[in-house]
Amino acid sequence: MSVLDKINGPSDLKKLNIDELNLLCDEARKFVIQKTNATGGHLGPNLGIVEATVALHYVFNSPQDKFVFDVSHQCYTHKILTGRKEGFTDPSKYLKYCGYTNPNESKHDQFVVGHTSTSVSLCVGLAKARDLHKEKYNVVAIIGDGSLSGGEAYEGLNNAAVLGTGIIIVVNDNEMSIAENQGGLYKNLELLRNTKGTAELNFFKSLGFDYYYEDEGNNVEKLIDIFSKVKDTKVPTVVHIHTLKGKGVKEAETNKEEFHWIIPHALDSDSNSSSSSYKGYEELTADYLLEQNKKYSDLVVITPATPGATGFSKSFRKSLGKDHFVDVAICEEHAMAYSSALAKSGARPVLGILSSFVQRTYDQISQDIGLNRSPVTVLVFWSGVSGADMTHLGSFDIPLISNIPNIHYLAPTSLEEYFDMLDFSLKRQLYPMFIRVPTDNPVVHNPDFISDDYSTVKNKVEIQGEKVAIFGVGSSFSLASKLHQKLKSKFNIQATLINPRFISGLDTNLLEKLKTNHDLIITLENGISDGGYGQKIASYYSHDDIKVYSYGALKEFPDREDSSTLISRYRFSTELIIEDIKSDLN
Amino acid sequence: MSVLDKINGPSDLKKLNIDELNLLCDEARKFVIQKTNATGGHLGPNLGIVEATVALHYVFNSPQDKFVFDVSHQCYTHKILTGRKEGFTDPSKYLKYCGYTNPNESKHDQFVVGHTSTSVSLCVGLAKARDLHKEKYNVVAIIGDGSLSGGEAYEGLNNAAVLGTGIIIVVNDNEMSIAENQGGLYKNLELLRNTKGTAELNFFKSLGFDYYYEDEGNNVEKLIDIFSKVKDTKVPTVVHIHTLKGKGVKEAETNKEEFHWIIPHALDSDSNSSSSSYKGYEELTADYLLEQNKKYSDLVVITPATPGATGFSKSFRKSLGKDHFVDVAICEEHAMAYSSALAKSGARPVLGILSSFVQRTYDQISQDIGLNRSPVTVLVFWSGVSGADMTHLGSFDIPLISNIPNIHYLAPTSLEEYFDMLDFSLKRQLYPMFIRVPTDNPVVHNPDFISDDYSTVKNKVEIQGEKVAIFGVGSSFSLASKLHQKLKSKFNIQATLINPRFISGLDTNLLEKLKTNHDLIITLENGISDGGYGQKIASYYSHDDIKVYSYGALKEFPDREDSSTLISRYRFSTELIIEDIKSDLN
Repeated sequence: MSVLDKINGPSDLKKLNIDELNLLCDEARKFVIQKTNATGGHLGPNLGIVEATVALHYVFNSPQDKFVFDVSHQCYTHKILTGRKEGFTDPSKYLKYCGYTNPNESKHDQFVVGHTSTSVSLCVGLAKARDLHKEKYNVVAIIGDGSLSGGEAYEGLNNAAVLGTGIIIVVNDNEMSIAENQGGLYKNLELLRNTKGTAELNFFKSLGFDYYYEDEGNNVEKLIDIFSKVKDTKVPTVVHIHTLKGKGVKEAETNKEEFHWIIPHALDSDSNSSSSSYKGYEELTADYLLEQNKKYSDLVVITPATPGATGFSKSFRKSLGKDHFVDVAICEEHAMAYSSALAKSGARPVLGILSSFVQRTYDQISQDIGLNRSPVTVLVFWSGVSGADMTHLGSFDIPLISNIPNIHYLAPTSLEEYFDMLDFSLKRQLYPMFIRVPTDNPVVHNPDFISDDYSTVKNKVEIQGEKVAIFGVGSSFSLASKLHQKLKSKFNIQATLINPRFISGLDTNLLEKLKTNHDLIITLENGISDGGYGQKIASYYSHDDIKVYSYGALKEFPDREDSSTLISRYRFSTELIIEDIKSDLN
Repeated sequence: MSVLDKINGPSDLKKLNIDELNLLCDEARKFVIQKTNATGGHLGPNLGIVEATVALHYVFNSPQDKFVFDVSHQCYTHKILTGRKEGFTDPSKYLKYCGYTNPNESKHDQFVVGHTSTSVSLCVGLAKARDLHKEKYNVVAIIGDGSLSGGEAYEGLNNAAVLGTGIIIVVNDNEMSIAENQGGLYKNLELLRNTKGTAELNFFKSLGFDYYYEDEGNNVEKLIDIFSKVKDTKVPTVVHIHTLKGKGVKEAETNKEEFHWIIPHALDSDSNSSSSSYKGYEELTADYLLEQNKKYSDLVVITPATPGATGFSKSFRKSLGKDHFVDVAICEEHAMAYSSALAKSGARPVLGILSSFVQRTYDQISQDIGLNRSPVTVLVFWSGVSGADMTHLGSFDIPLISNIPNIHYLAPTSLEEYFDMLDFSLKRQLYPMFIRVPTDNPVVHNPDFISDDYSTVKNKVEIQGEKVAIFGVGSSFSLASKLHQKLKSKFNIQATLINPRFISGLDTNLLEKLKTNHDLIITLENGISDGGYGQKIASYYSHDDIKVYSYGALKEFPDREDSSTLISRYRFSTELIIEDIKSDLN
């Protein structure tokens, strides 16, 4: 019988001795590796924090004591210890639990969390509620060193420090963000590690925290000691522990960035995860930017700590060098304002950011970029409806970005068009250009593509027709084309097929022209309908005898739902659309 | 002849001796006071930084050297010294220049800035562009201690510290935010002031900055010394200067918060700025919350450093006490996540925030509140079209908030309805409720108001009619009523008059019913049309033979434009609307 067999909840841990706790760590680690290799997931962060999680649950009493894991991508062992071990031990239940904390799964989870740097803020709120309700329990934030670069983490620390009551912040320092850490703070963390926490110059102490350091952050016994010391503290306290990211898997310990998050079977000996059969938009973007870097001496490619996700591989970064590639760390707000200043100074910033994270910087897009008309180039990756976890959806960027004045949000429909827009933006630096990077397979080329001018909002009429006009925004253009064919083959309607190119504004000349011989408009966009492109078109024609059918996602947070389920719920198929419009076709 | 008469640009300063520079400070201060008292404006911040501005322009060479003023509400002396003194000395030109920096006014201004905590990020970008272009000049951020609580300031500092090249950050420490400073950082600033900058524990040094301190931050000679020392530095450098907010006006030195920003003639002896003839929504909200605090022991009223603007006066704060009133400092992201955690723990947070600043926290509204369905109560003040500076517009909150899943954004049309919604939110804690606080004069009451249930999206039909239906969102309801009357008196049409109450969703039952005997819908909302309520209605009816006319603001950043100009540009009057719809009325 394994130790884990005896663990059905945190209280079962209390009965174990140190040897058994060590065994438990080994067992938990084994299951984390097996499960993550099978389904994909956050390998490195979870391997580093096995011992700390066991020690936390040994010392504290969850759920009376509250743990908030920052980003919560390191919560696997926590799930194993809190009644969800089947999700790791039983392959048939591997997908039962999500990769983040979720109160619907367990009372041991306080919040749904998937974006970074929020744990301290959330814990300050928990601690305040505890004090108001005159209750007594520990509130513990567990935050990685990488997450500490986000401004909100600092805002939370600034407030936590003057809470006047107990709050514990465990800084899980594995010397890494997703990629390398960036910034002055990390020099201080290094100094603290090198001096075993004794250096006078201490970021956390400067804010007013009681400070504890444990160098052996993967040693259960030592962690139990230090957590026991701070348990029930009456003052704001930081426990800085030094852990090894990826611990237990040699490749993950060595190549920390590559094994931060893995695809299924990345650890299998016959797997070669890097050999994809084709290059995606991410890699092709990187290739393109390397070429541009030869042309423009002031190109600066910027990432807010997600270089891998946007194609900015280690070799790419090395080729560009630190003059032309800047990882600002996890801080989207700074990344956007920084880009604005570069562009205003005549340099050529290209910021790559994921759709799910661009929403962390609305104010800077509006004030620093829109209001200042800074000619930045921002590439929005991973947008659109997907089966992603509800914390990482890419369906909100259209209303977010396109309703800000002066921002041009463009949606290319092909590889050639994408690079043509990029060329235009870098060469002309005319206005703030955000590009919604396509998410489909880029191998399908258009050999007849003609380079164009994107100075003003102008839609491209791909096929001129009559009666029906179909607007296919960005990656929805392929569905628009299919619908066009179907209308032809099934109803003998030669519809007008339009690639809007610009999501952020309407080509009113074209819209006026369409009035003369069209009475049905269909819009397709791969994102939520509310506040989006289709609603603008519908509103434009709302005084006319023209019907508009707009398709997009519903306003909701779907959680790991199958793409096909979503597609049918959103009626995003030629069959369903034709069913809707049939009665208006004659 | 005054010293100022000789100053037409910063280069003229270089010819002055210390006595003349001191005289110049006195003269500049006098004009700042006179002008600000005449037009209203940021008095306290500008009075504190007169000497530092003179010293900066004496030591550095703007515009080759670049200054970025954080928030830029302290740029008056900078404007006086950079060719815009007429805006302060000539009453007929008092309104010629805006209250913030603006590159369209002068090459000495780098950016349009009005929101806080961005200056360091912007300067990191300027410095990077300088280095890429192999140029040599100083880049200087001037940031107040209050602005340092914003996460982006820290993100910028974290990056600036590892820039590897020269950047200067002047920390203008006047011991105040708009109200008191809040947070652990401020204990460290106090320690640094008390030790004249010599304390070992130093927030800035912990991040890696070279650090200089000047206690006499209103002494031109000393400031010239210290700025001269850091000029042309090759390393990231912080110059911490201790200044007196409001210096030169006794009331402003004493009551720093009240005189941070003043209304016109606040300094006139016969002025009594606090005696308004009626209480606005801000004060009435405060009165209401004081009452609720007797009922609910876990009420927490929260401000992100703008208590005065949302009615949370000093006496209000004192009455609630620190258990029930929390100023988290300028950090909207933390404020929102903190509120979420309070609400999830069963406490009753009420966050008051200005429309212009709510956009600084989209991600937290989405992830921490929407996704977690935290039953927070958020009051959005100062929304709608106004003659405000382009950096402080309140017209973007509807698309921002109402397109986030699970967030209920409500728009009351009267005092009674507002408090009824607040009652409901605090009592039921059913879902995240954001309320768009009305901005009109609240003295007009509705004696027949009946308390209601806001569990689900339901519009209120105030007058049942036919043919035409008018939706008046929140503060636009009064215009809707007027239009209703006009249609009756002029066209003998008894229109249906609707108070939508919910901006974030549609009452589809009602919308379906309207189809039976209405063919023209008019929507009015006090905010931008793009992504807003009217476009949702237009989209809803886009398959039907119903015409929809939606009125709202254009997608633009108007700058201090007269409300009446805006109202006519947006066709927001009964006359203009009737002109538009006339042909559809028969």
